[in-house]
Amino acid sequence: MSLGAALRVTRGLSGLLPRLPPRWGHGRACTPPLLLAQQRSNSTSTKIKVEFDPSSGVAVMRLQSPPVNSLSLDFLTEFCISLEKLEMDKSCRGLIITSNQPKVFSAGLDILEMYGKSPERCGEFWKAVQEMWLKLYSSDMITIAAINGSSPAGGCLMALTCDYRIMADQPRYTIGLNETLLGIVAPFWFKDTMANTVGHRTTEMALQLGLLYSPSEALKVGLVDQLVPEDQILSTATQTMTRWLAIPDHARQITKSMMRKPTIDRLASNREADIQNFVNFITKDSIQKSLRTYLEILKKKKA
Amino acid sequence: MSLGAALRVTRGLSGLLPRLPPRWGHGRACTPPLLLAQQRSNSTSTKIKVEFDPSSGVAVMRLQSPPVNSLSLDFLTEFCISLEKLEMDKSCRGLIITSNQPKVFSAGLDILEMYGKSPERCGEFWKAVQEMWLKLYSSDMITIAAINGSSPAGGCLMALTCDYRIMADQPRYTIGLNETLLGIVAPFWFKDTMANTVGHRTTEMALQLGLLYSPSEALKVGLVDQLVPEDQILSTATQTMTRWLAIPDHARQITKSMMRKPTIDRLASNREADIQNFVNFITKDSIQKSLRTYLEILKKKKA
Amino acid sequence: MSLGAALRVTRGLSGLLPRLPPRWGHGRACTPPLLLAQQRSNSTSTKIKVEFDPSSGVAVMRLQSPPVNSLSLDFLTEFCISLEKLEMDKSCRGLIITSNQPKVFSAGLDILEMYGKSPERCGEFWKAVQEMWLKLYSSDMITIAAINGSSPAGGCLMALTCDYRIMADQPRYTIGLNETLLGIVAPFWFKDTMANTVGHRTTEMALQLGLLYSPSEALKVGLVDQLVPEDQILSTATQTMTRWLAIPDHARQITKSMMRKPTIDRLASNREADIQNFVNFITKDSIQKSLRTYLEILKKKKA
Repeated sequence: MSLGAALRVTRGLSGLLPRLPPRWGHGRACTPPLLLAQQRSNSTSTKIKVEFDPSSGVAVMRLQSPPVNSLSLDFLTEFCISLEKLEMDKSCRGLIITSNQPKVFSAGLDILEMYGKSPERCGEFWKAVQEMWLKLYSSDMITIAAINGSSPAGGCLMALTCDYRIMADQPRYTIGLNETLLGIVAPFWFKDTMANTVGHRTTEMALQLGLLYSPSEALKVGLVDQLVPEDQILSTATQTMTRWLAIPDHARQITKSMMRKPTIDRLASNREADIQNFVNFITKDSIQKSLRTYLEILKKKKA
Repeated sequence: MSLGAALRVTRGLSGLLPRLPPRWGHGRACTPPLLLAQQRSNSTSTKIKVEFDPSSGVAVMRLQSPPVNSLSLDFLTEFCISLEKLEMDKSCRGLIITSNQPKVFSAGLDILEMYGKSPERCGEFWKAVQEMWLKLYSSDMITIAAINGSSPAGGCLMALTCDYRIMADQPRYTIGLNETLLGIVAPFWFKDTMANTVGHRTTEMALQLGLLYSPSEALKVGLVDQLVPEDQILSTATQTMTRWLAIPDHARQITKSMMRKPTIDRLASNREADIQNFVNFITKDSIQKSLRTYLEILKKKKA
Repeated sequence: MSLGAALRVTRGLSGLLPRLPPRWGHGRACTPPLLLAQQRSNSTSTKIKVEFDPSSGVAVMRLQSPPVNSLSLDFLTEFCISLEKLEMDKSCRGLIITSNQPKVFSAGLDILEMYGKSPERCGEFWKAVQEMWLKLYSSDMITIAAINGSSPAGGCLMALTCDYRIMADQPRYTIGLNETLLGIVAPFWFKDTMANTVGHRTTEMALQLGLLYSPSEALKVGLVDQLVPEDQILSTATQTMTRWLAIPDHARQITKSMMRKPTIDRLASNREADIQNFVNFITKDSIQKSLRTYLEILKKKKA
């Protein structure tokens, strides 16, 4: 990765990584499926706060994994458990996703999960990224992203996977799938999700250049649906949700599935190959070197 | 279906259903194919008026089935017969479709054909809806919709199936695939036709919310191609037709087929499954209940 | 083809064909593959001038086949050889394509290659057109079209096949796939390339009507990405290239391939059928007659 590109990344993320995560460089024990199942019933999520209002049928999910809501394996696991719980509760019809961290919605995939890790661990991580996308893109609930901060890479994917996107009209915030800037590649289902939202041409150029859009640019190309002042983002999301809740659930759900199923099926029927593809790519020496360069720039920036 | 949604529907259709069809709730004998074939040669169409001008090679088809050009089985049968006659007449190169009813182009599928009917009858009806779309979307003629009134649901489909759409610039008129508002679902080929016109994202949101667009909104998203004052709609359609007639027919027809064949083939190779899918869905108790609620609201509105 | 259509073509191409090619109506010996391979090593290209700057890693390819850079078999053969040489030179990362002829980028496929030729020769020609597209659309290099003149039909295809399009803001210039105006049909991969750029609906209407867009119209529908005064076109292309060069090559190339491979594979796996299809169509009496009419109009215009 050229320095110019790396600088552009850090500029795009400026202020997003004031502190590095405390677990910096430490490993994390693999969670066996059994333990995961047990966690489901008694987990006290710390990285994600969920408030469900039975009177409206709407849940608000607040991402609160300091400093920048990076999508680590822990975070993704908690996210999927929380989502599944809401999905199984038939009284929950709508979900608003927002951030409790200042200036950032989510900084995307946690690079520490991709750097210096074993292939097995990388595969486990990627499976969790897939799971997040599969569950959210196919959710029967109405999903609204209240994007109250920057949202690069995996953070942008999470927003794109919702039914509607409201972004804070703050010019310093950016959103986009900027993977190429780090020398890595958005996988086909990131690309499909973006193309379903902004079309083939905008996606082709944005992914090749790793474009990060300002809120007004994002609105213009259709990456987000609406801009509001940051302090009105939750109230706007709630009002928007009311409009969606007026639609009969069953008809809306079948319609949503009809629109998204072909895209979901492409990954669902190729999960193992996609994991293998990611692991082979990310464990390459050249890619690991790119990630190290990037991490060092972030460290210096912090110091 | 929630009352809020039902009210939105009636608001969207305000003024569209001043009188209920006289056959309200009555059955209709099934037309066997043989009889249909005989009708073809000696039918005097009453629901559709066709004027063909041999000097220009252009036919104008006026929909005149009071009160709102609902797409009943009778109407669709007449429509397909008229279309096929024009298609077989090689001197007819262009077709303009417009309405002779005030304020409405077509109110879409006749709900009375879907409520309280036998599965066989529902299947026959759906086959006729398919036939209308297949014939019109693959027509060798240049087809222009002169949308001189509201055009919800199946009425919107009919317009989308043409080559070009001119709409009257009257803010009270609306157009869109609003099926979800009634608790029903636009089938995949309605969705494909809309996505081919306005793209995946606009379609996803419009179909989930059952959006009805004003003329200026419809122009903005590309659902229609041009707005003109209502009294200029036919003259504009005629002028536009002249421009299309300047293109060599053979090259234009091959080009049109290349653009549309993949979409047409998806239904053509799945007609029986699509009929079965519709019949199973529409005859469900919950869906019948939604339709009854909707019909009762229309009745009250009328009273 | 109607006279009206023919006149529109000539209007669209006005000034593009001041002189007819000197080889008018003459045959050309078929180049066997062996000879082609020999040419590769010692050809001195006359129709295409390539300047490569090793310090920037950027090559500029100037089309200079008088009068209008028609895509003849000779031209296409030189183009592919030049492209392949640059592609194999790993120090060449970017390519700018522009014209050395006044007022025209490229007038598209050479009609003389399609009129009065044997089926074998037509097939050879079509294979070269395919080759140009396959090589350019899948190029690992960053490709920028600096469109400093009109660019109808095959000229538009060449521009669409690049990664980025900058057009001279000169209202007399036009760009578009206008094949139907000549009574011929853009093949599916022309259509796919355009749809990937401007979407299905714009493509459907543009191809049916053979639309030629002014620069500002082309920008509006997304056919080109940027307009600049004609004298700034190369400097703008160079600045744009710098931005693209900042992206790590490997990640950008994989991303580009992910976006374009499905489209490329459709032709790559159907080349022979596509050639046969073209030959059958173009050698029809009716099509040959259309081409003759068109050529006669051009001749008269010249006289």
